[in-house]
Order: sequence, then C-alpha cells, then structure tokens
Amino acid sequence: MGDLLRIAIVGYGEIACRQHVPAIAKTSGVALVAVVDPVKTPPGLPHFRDLQELLRDGPEIDAVALCTPPQVRHAQAAAALASGKHVLLEKPPGTTLSELTPLIAAAQEAGRTLFATWHSRYAAAVGPARQLLAGRTINKVTIIWKEDVRVWHPGQAWIFEVGGFGVFDPGINALSILTEILPRAVFIRSAALDFPSNREAPIAAEIELSDAGGLPIHAEFDFRQTGSPSWDILCETEAGPVTLSKGGRQLRDGGRLVVDAPDEEYPALYRRFVALTSEGKSDVDLAPLRLVADSFMLGRRRLVEAFED
Amino acid sequence: MGDLLRIAIVGYGEIACRQHVPAIAKTSGVALVAVVDPVKTPPGLPHFRDLQELLRDGPEIDAVALCTPPQVRHAQAAAALASGKHVLLEKPPGTTLSELTPLIAAAQEAGRTLFATWHSRYAAAVGPARQLLAGRTINKVTIIWKEDVRVWHPGQAWIFEVGGFGVFDPGINALSILTEILPRAVFIRSAALDFPSNREAPIAAEIELSDAGGLPIHAEFDFRQTGSPSWDILCETEAGPVTLSKGGRQLRDGGRLVVDAPDEEYPALYRRFVALTSEGKSDVDLAPLRLVADSFMLGRRRLVEAFED
Repeated sequence: MGDLLRIAIVGYGEIACRQHVPAIAKTSGVALVAVVDPVKTPPGLPHFRDLQELLRDGPEIDAVALCTPPQVRHAQAAAALASGKHVLLEKPPGTTLSELTPLIAAAQEAGRTLFATWHSRYAAAVGPARQLLAGRTINKVTIIWKEDVRVWHPGQAWIFEVGGFGVFDPGINALSILTEILPRAVFIRSAALDFPSNREAPIAAEIELSDAGGLPIHAEFDFRQTGSPSWDILCETEAGPVTLSKGGRQLRDGGRLVVDAPDEEYPALYRRFVALTSEGKSDVDLAPLRLVADSFMLGRRRLVEAFED
Repeated sequence: MGDLLRIAIVGYGEIACRQHVPAIAKTSGVALVAVVDPVKTPPGLPHFRDLQELLRDGPEIDAVALCTPPQVRHAQAAAALASGKHVLLEKPPGTTLSELTPLIAAAQEAGRTLFATWHSRYAAAVGPARQLLAGRTINKVTIIWKEDVRVWHPGQAWIFEVGGFGVFDPGINALSILTEILPRAVFIRSAALDFPSNREAPIAAEIELSDAGGLPIHAEFDFRQTGSPSWDILCETEAGPVTLSKGGRQLRDGGRLVVDAPDEEYPALYRRFVALTSEGKSDVDLAPLRLVADSFMLGRRRLVEAFED
C-alpha cells in the first residue's frame, strides 16, 4: 500500500457526490480517506468541518481534491500545499488568473503536484476530435452551450455571486474543449455578457473568437435553456462538418458516428492525477480561464431580466 | 548607419506627439522615418493613412511603434510581424491577454522583437524603490491613482469604449510599477468597478490585492479627480513609510527624499527597445494586464452617474 494516494475531498457538494466519489472508487492507486464539508456528512468516512481541522486532527493524507466553490479554493489550495499535500483543483481553478501564480510556485517549491483539472477534456470524443481536425482545414466553428441552471446547478447560489462565473461555469467547459481540439491558440475578439438585474454574474454570453489564421469562432452560452441541454461544438471543414456533441462524448464526421461513449471523464482525470503525483509533476493550463477573463474585460455588459431561482 | 533602427510611429495621437517623437530623437541607434495616422499629418516626415499603405509604399523600415488605441493594435501588430518588422506596443499591450499568445509566437517564428512596454516602470525612482524594498519587511501597501480624465485624456473617446479600459488605462501604470517593486507575485482578492450609466468602461475602481505572504494591498483608481493628480504608492514597512509618488519619479524613505527626477521614461524605454532588437529578443510581461482582466472578472459592477465629456 506504500504507493496508494490517500485523498480527502474538500467540499462535498453536487460534483463531489456525483463524480469524484465514484471516480476515486474506480481508480487504482488512490483511496478516499476523509471528507471535509461545513454541513454535509457522508456515510462511512471520517468527516471534518474545515480543512484546518482535517490537517490537524484527521488521518494521514497525501492529497486533497478541492470541490468547493471557486471563491474559497485559493486559500484552501495554499494551506494544503503548505502542509505538503498534492492538490487537485476542480474547474475553474480559481476566481482569478493571478492567484494561480503563487500556487504554482508553492507546488514547485514543495515538490508537490498542482493539477488544475478540465474534466470536459477527458470526455471520450475529445481526443479523437483533435486527431480528426488535425488533418482538416477548418473554415468556421460554432459553439452552442446552453443548459437550464435550475436543473444543472440546484442550490448553487455561489454561481451567480461575484467570482461564481455565472454561465461561464459551464461555458468554460466548452472553452476547455475548444482549446484542446484546435491546432492553434485562440483569442477573444468581442463578447456580450447578459447580467440579470439582481445578480452579480452573467446568465448568458455571446462571444466571437479567432486564431492567428483568422478562423471565425462563434460561441453562445445560455443558462435560460429549458428542456434538453445543448453542449455542442460544430466545426465546418473543407471535407464537411465535424460535430462534437453531448459535452464531448459524441463525435460525428459528416453523417458518420465516430464516437458515442458514456460519461467517463472523472476516472480518466483521476488516473492522470495519480500519474502526475507519482512523477512529481504539475499540470496547470490557464488558457480556458484566460479566455473567460478576457471576455469579462472586453465584454459589453447588458442588463437583462432579474433571475429568480 | 547599418545598425540604425528605422522606425515608424503608427497612431500620431497624444502619447506619440508628447512622448515617442522626442524620445526617439534623444535615443541613439533609432530614427523616426515615417508616421501613420488616418487624420493627423506631422510636419517634415513621410505620412501614410494606414499601416498597409506604409508597408506597401513607404520607406524601408525595421520597426513600428504602435501608439494607436488598444482596440486596433492587435491586427496592426500581426501585420507588422508578418512583414518582418520589430514591434513596440504602447500599454496596454492589447484588449485581451489571449491575443498576445499568437503575437508572441509570430515574433519568435519571424525572429523579430515584440516589446510590450510599461512606460511607468522606466520612471527614475522605480528601480531604487525596488532595491530599497528588497531589504525591508512590508506590512501594507496603498495605491492612490487619481487624475482628471478631461485634462489627461482630451479627445480620447476610445478610453470609455469597450476595450478602452476606462480608469484602468492609467491604473495599469500603477499595477506595472507595483509588480516591478514588490518581491513577490500579487493577485486580486476583490474589486469594485464603477461604470457610468452611459459608458462601457469604468470611471473608478477599488481593488484589494495580496501576495503569498498575505500582504494587504489597497488600490483606488479614479478619473473624477479635479485639481492635481495623485499617482502615489505608499509602502508601510517595519522601518517606516516608503513613498513612491509623481507616477514613480519621486521616492521618499521616511522623511528623506531619495529620488526626485524629471520625466525620462520614454528615452529609457527606447534604449531598451534598441537593445532588444539588436539581441533579437522579445519582452512581453503580461502581469499588469492579467491583474486588470482579473479585476473585471472578479469585480463587482456598480452603476454610477453618467459621464459627459
């Protein structure tokens, strides 16, 4: 058991219960040994109210998976690294880009892994999409990322608070896929952000992006979708449309279905974390967060109807 | 004359006339050979309406200094690098962080210099302030950066447009100094941005920053100042206050005046550009722009009184 990575989940909310717990159970080389949450008590595991209590009184751990809202994650990551723990950050890795700089330095100094995860990049069709597109000339990209916030983020009040990103919380998943499948770096050309009159974060956004070759990329994010979500990226290529849908789990090349796989993102993500810790490496790609920051900086703000949950 | 850097100024506005032209004249190894501006015609120099006209019909040049508003600078920089010219970018280096990535790659591929300038870092007291603070424990930093937009930005309508940065246009000067004089990386903890009801960019901002050691840093930017501008950074240290004022030209250590120098930022900046081009190196530090992007992303938006110029 010497090589077993003993991990604690911090923030036992929606994403922890639904994804992290089963993924850890499926992954060899890692074991869940404690949970930190101010309120929720999971069955059958040592439980602590906050990270300090865990670090002081808890079982020995090697790593923490931070599944808390982004607004509190930076202080927790800094404390965990200072205690010599590896750190897995749920997405987005922080509320700012600049807060990551000292964390990267701290991980390097401590010889520990800092892993800024982008779970959507581990969806089954993302790798195949990248390979397919590498051999094509792409003429246009359209991203439609729309979901019902009431269905997909129940009780997550933080999402509309300052630092909660609003519709960019799911939208950054699309951007994490986009920056993985395209051959060249992309940048924001313009953006329009719709802020509900009673909220601090946008409920919808329209963004125009491009790359050094002038590729037009149009993205629409919307939390006001009802019915089925749309998590689609359509790439129009010389050889016909390449469509990545279901959040990166399904790939079509023209009419041909290339990949159609179930959700297996988090187990792949934990295999990567185990590998990173054993190699003593970090993985912090800030490109998706940079695109969000740019959208806020360059974005035109539009006030829209109040949103009541 | 083989080593003379032949430069064209693109965007013959306020900053070009007041700073770039006299600085180039003072700097050995560089000569101003053309000016590009859609409207203004400077006396005694070849003049072109746009960059394409210069590159097609103009005299041979080695470099361009882009003094245009940030909203149009990216396309100009890309075109100049594609034509094999060195590029000097006025601050801010772009309207987004992400647009810099392809420019950095293009400069490297072309073996040309991309220089993202931060003129305030060349103010006479900035280097001495950094050295002084390196030996001190700093307990608190306060930045007051307030000026009358009507006095300091006459006719610059772009500054309140999308991508114009508003009060962050001068504020980024303070952030460029802050990131130069402090020993550790800083990050944004919270921000409040005041948007006039009739404008796209903030007229004032209050920002809280910190570093890995928990140093409290408070910044106030305001365009509604009347009378004298305040361009001051106060560092409270164990050994008393260290005050950098006049935009980085004056340094006091407690009551003692250490530096009090005239404005010589741009000649120093052009000496650096000449050195970079002769060494074939680029210099693109995005830390100040990253702090601005973070302020927009994390910032609470407050609507304030309309601003009429």
